[in-house]
Amino acid sequence: MPTDSQPTSDPLVLFGQRLVQLRKERGWSQEQLALECGMARSYLGGVERGKRNIALLNICKLADALSVSPAEMLKLNSD
Amino acid sequence: MPTDSQPTSDPLVLFGQRLVQLRKERGWSQEQLALECGMARSYLGGVERGKRNIALLNICKLADALSVSPAEMLKLNSD
Repeated sequence: MPTDSQPTSDPLVLFGQRLVQLRKERGWSQEQLALECGMARSYLGGVERGKRNIALLNICKLADALSVSPAEMLKLNSD
Repeated sequence: MPTDSQPTSDPLVLFGQRLVQLRKERGWSQEQLALECGMARSYLGGVERGKRNIALLNICKLADALSVSPAEMLKLNSD
């Protein structure tokens, strides 16, 4: 029976999980990340919940704000 | 004086160059890649020229078609 903790292969959900991971590693709130990258907190919330099909320029802005490479952003736990 | 071969830091252009590289490594035409990933050839042309802010789901579709990870797609030559 599916549960909330079921593994997913949805790239948007996996990216959201990756973003949460990178943000929390820095001890940042969504609000802090929003300030660092110049995006709205509500938009970031949608990205973290896998509800937004984020485009390349915003992926790169997040990578800059988090001081990782764009490739690091896309290391998704899909297996 | 700027030339066509000037290095760029535009992520869209760098991604386009990366896509061309991965496609040519496979010996594929744009038309073949379009068939493999289910996108229009004209759209892919725009992506390769850095004219399109491609979103995550399409980046992942291209990764699947090219048999690389999403992270591999974003290994951009920005230095």
